[in-house]
Amino acid sequence: MSRKICSQVLQKIKPSKSEEKALHRLTNRIITQIDAAAKELGVEVRGLLVGSAARNTWISGDRDLDIFITFPESVTHEELESLGLGIAKKVAPKYEERYAEHPYIRAFFEGIPDETSGRVVIPKGFQGYRVDLVPCFRVSDPSAIRSAVDRTPFHNEYVKNKIKGLEDEVRLLKQFLKGIGVYGAELKTMGFSGYLCELLIIKYNSFLDVVQSVSKWHRNVIIDIENHGTLEHDTPLVIIDPVDPSRNVAAAVSLDNFCTFVDASREFLKKPGIHFFFPPPVKPLTDKELAQELKHRKTELLAVVFDTPNVVDDILYPQLYKAVRSIEELLHRNDFRVFRSGIWSGVRSVILLEMEVATLPNVKKHIGPPVESSIHAEKFKIKYASQHPYIQDGRYVVDISREYTKAKDLLKSKLKTCGVGKHVSEAIGKGYRVLKDAQIAKIEDKDFRIFLRKYFRKYRRMRG
Amino acid sequence: MSRKICSQVLQKIKPSKSEEKALHRLTNRIITQIDAAAKELGVEVRGLLVGSAARNTWISGDRDLDIFITFPESVTHEELESLGLGIAKKVAPKYEERYAEHPYIRAFFEGIPDETSGRVVIPKGFQGYRVDLVPCFRVSDPSAIRSAVDRTPFHNEYVKNKIKGLEDEVRLLKQFLKGIGVYGAELKTMGFSGYLCELLIIKYNSFLDVVQSVSKWHRNVIIDIENHGTLEHDTPLVIIDPVDPSRNVAAAVSLDNFCTFVDASREFLKKPGIHFFFPPPVKPLTDKELAQELKHRKTELLAVVFDTPNVVDDILYPQLYKAVRSIEELLHRNDFRVFRSGIWSGVRSVILLEMEVATLPNVKKHIGPPVESSIHAEKFKIKYASQHPYIQDGRYVVDISREYTKAKDLLKSKLKTCGVGKHVSEAIGKGYRVLKDAQIAKIEDKDFRIFLRKYFRKYRRMRG
Repeated sequence: MSRKICSQVLQKIKPSKSEEKALHRLTNRIITQIDAAAKELGVEVRGLLVGSAARNTWISGDRDLDIFITFPESVTHEELESLGLGIAKKVAPKYEERYAEHPYIRAFFEGIPDETSGRVVIPKGFQGYRVDLVPCFRVSDPSAIRSAVDRTPFHNEYVKNKIKGLEDEVRLLKQFLKGIGVYGAELKTMGFSGYLCELLIIKYNSFLDVVQSVSKWHRNVIIDIENHGTLEHDTPLVIIDPVDPSRNVAAAVSLDNFCTFVDASREFLKKPGIHFFFPPPVKPLTDKELAQELKHRKTELLAVVFDTPNVVDDILYPQLYKAVRSIEELLHRNDFRVFRSGIWSGVRSVILLEMEVATLPNVKKHIGPPVESSIHAEKFKIKYASQHPYIQDGRYVVDISREYTKAKDLLKSKLKTCGVGKHVSEAIGKGYRVLKDAQIAKIEDKDFRIFLRKYFRKYRRMRG
Repeated sequence: MSRKICSQVLQKIKPSKSEEKALHRLTNRIITQIDAAAKELGVEVRGLLVGSAARNTWISGDRDLDIFITFPESVTHEELESLGLGIAKKVAPKYEERYAEHPYIRAFFEGIPDETSGRVVIPKGFQGYRVDLVPCFRVSDPSAIRSAVDRTPFHNEYVKNKIKGLEDEVRLLKQFLKGIGVYGAELKTMGFSGYLCELLIIKYNSFLDVVQSVSKWHRNVIIDIENHGTLEHDTPLVIIDPVDPSRNVAAAVSLDNFCTFVDASREFLKKPGIHFFFPPPVKPLTDKELAQELKHRKTELLAVVFDTPNVVDDILYPQLYKAVRSIEELLHRNDFRVFRSGIWSGVRSVILLEMEVATLPNVKKHIGPPVESSIHAEKFKIKYASQHPYIQDGRYVVDISREYTKAKDLLKSKLKTCGVGKHVSEAIGKGYRVLKDAQIAKIEDKDFRIFLRKYFRKYRRMRG
C-alpha cells in the first residue's frame, strides 16, 4: 500500500530526463562561464554546483540552484568578495545583490539554448531558474572554515558519496515534509532542510524506514552518523553534522515541527495516502465564514495591521514572532488574556490576537509594600490616601482605576512600547491599525484569508 | 497628647465603683451557691471566678463572666460532667447547655438584689450578665491538665499575681484592639484574646509601651516572658504561654490582624486620637450607593445566599471561610477570575464574590497528551476528532466548547460540588440563591449593608 503510494508520488516529483538535461546544460554553462571569467582575472577560481541539483535529489519543478564560486585560501576576504561578486555579475543576465553572512548574487536565468539547435528550450511549466552565486573559500578541512558557506562544499562531497541509488528516497521524504508543511530550515518555517533529509536517508536507508523510525521518536533524539559529536545540544532533534562534530544540523527545527513530523509519520503508517504529500488546497475564508466563527467562538479577534518592512524573510519572520510574543506580554501585564495568536505577512503584515479576556473592570488591585516596612508603607499610604488602602495578605493594597479596560485601546496606545525587532518596529512606527472582529474582513488578501481558514482549522484535513 | 487621650478613654471604659460592686455581689453569690450545692452533693468542689472579672481588667459594660466549677482529680470525667452540670443548672435561673471541648452551662442573670435593701439594683444601661459555668479539674500543675479548660485557673493565678496596678493599661489595650477591629481570639475574628492583652502589658508594662513596640514589629515576633518555650511556632506572632511552655497564646492571630495592629500602632503614635478606641459608626450602604459602586467599578458582584446553619460561631465561621476559598477555586478552575471576596452572616449567610472576569468565550483550550505518547495520542485524537486537534508546545490541543461561559451559571449548577464544611454544606444543600449586581439590594439586613459599606471602604476612616 505505502509502496504503491510512494511510486505514485515519485511519478509526480522525479524530474524527467529532459528536465534533468536542461538543468545540467544550465549549470555546466554557468560553471564554464565562471571558470572562464576567473581565468581572465588570473585567479585560481572554480565554479562548483552544490545542493540538491548536485546530488540529484531535487524535486521536479524546483528551479532553485546553488553554485559556489570557490577561492583558494590565499586570497583575502575583501578579494573574495569583490572578485566573487564581479564574476557572478558577469555570468548573471539578471540579478539582485543579497546578503546572508556574506554578500552573494541571486541570478535569474530564463531558459537555456539547446546545444545543437541553438534555440532556447523551455521545458513544460518552466518559469526560469533562480541561481544563488555564492563566493566561498576552498579550505582543506571543515574545521578550517572561515564562514558557514565554506562548509557547504564538504556537505556536498559527503552526500554525493553516500546517496547514490537513494536519490528517490530523499525526494519522497522532502515531498512528505512539504506536504505536511514543515520543509525548509528558514526562520519563517523552522523546519527540516534538504541536507537534513539527505542525512536521514543515509541513516535509515529509505523513506519508509525514516517514517517508521520517526513515528517512534521522542523529543531529544540524537543522530550522530559519524559518531563524533562533541557538544550538548538543547533541541528536540539533534543531528550531528557528519562534516562538523560541533554542529547540529537540526538546530532550526522547532518543537512543534518535530511533533508534526512524528504525528504525520504515525498517521501515514496507520493509513497511507497521497494527501500526505499533496494536501488539497485550502480555500480563502469568506466574510460570512469569518462572521460565523466569531459568533460561534465568542472570543474577541484583534488584528494589528501594518505595512511589511522591505527585508528578507529570514530577518522579517523572527521579528514578527518576537513582536507577537512581546504584544502578548503587554496584554498579560495588563491582565488581558490571549486565547491564541498567529502571524501572517504579505504586502501588509498582520499580528492576529484571539482574546479570551478583552474587557476588564474599571478597578484593579495595586499591591503595595508589606505592612511592616514602615518607610515604604508611609509613602504608599500618602500616595494612595484617597483610594483607601487596605491590608491583604500582609501587604497594603488599593483598588485603583485601570488605565485600559479594553485590549484594543491598550494596543492602540501602547503598541509602540513593545520590544520588537528593528524593521518591524520601524514599520509599526510609520503607522498601524487595530481591527476588531468583523472589521478584519477589510483585509481581502487571498493568502491572508487562507491563513485565517487554517487558523480556525476550518478546512478538510485528510489526516489526524 | 496620647496620655490625655488615654485618660479620656479610661473615663469611658473603667467600670464605676457601683458596677464593680454589682459584679462582685453577683460573682460572690454564684460562688457561694456553687459551694453550697457541692456540699449538699458531698463532693469537694469549689467555685472559682476566672477571666477579666477575676483580674479586674474588664471593660465597663462587659457582662460576660466565667465561673469555673473546680473538681478534685479523684473524680472521673463522667462524674465531673454530670455533677458539674447539675450544680450549674441549680445555680442558674435561665441557661442553655453548650459544648466546647467539654459541656458547660451558659447562664443568664438579670439583676442582683442589693444586699441591704433586697431590691434588684440595675446599673445604668444594664442588660443582664451572661455567665459561663464551666466544670474543670483542679490539677497540681499545668503539665497535668486533662483538657484545655483545666489550664484556665493557672492563667488566672499567673495574671492576678503580675497585673496588680496595671489593670487600666490592659483595659486601654483591649479597647484599642476593639476599636481597630481585631479583639477576640474566636475563629470569626482571629484576633487578640484578653489573656494575650494581659501578657503584653505584663511584658511591656503600659499601653503606650505596647504600642511603641508593636509599631516596630515584623512578622515572626517571639515573646517568651518566662523564657521557657519548647516548640517552634509558624505564626506571625508567637507568645509563649507563661504557664505552658509548649503553647502559643497568639496561635489564632491572623497575619492581617497582626498587620492591622502594627499599622494602627504606627498611626496612633503619629497622630493619636480617640477614634482609634471608638471609631465612628459605619452606616448601612443604601441601594443607590450600591448601584453607584457597581457602575464605578464595573466588576460583576455575585452573592451566594443561604440560611445560616444553627451552630456556634466557632464552628460556623471556619466553614464559611473554607466555603469562600473553595468557591474561588471552583471559579478559577473554570477560568473565571475573582477580584475580591467576603463573607457575612446573620439570619442568612452571604458569600460575596466580586468578579474581575465573569464572562468567557464559548471556546476553551483543552490540552491533550504530548505528541510522542502514541497510545494516549491515539485515544485523544479519536475522542476529539470532530474538534480538529492541533499541535502546540509539543502537545495535542483542541478548542472545545466551554460548559459555563458565565460565573453565575457555574455557581448555580456546581456550588454543591465545592468542598465546604458539614453544616454550611447542609445549609447550601437545603437551597441557595445566587444574586447578581443590583439584585443584591434585595438583602436589606442592616448589618449586611454595614458589611457592604466596609467591603467597598466607603466610610470615613479617621486613620490610614
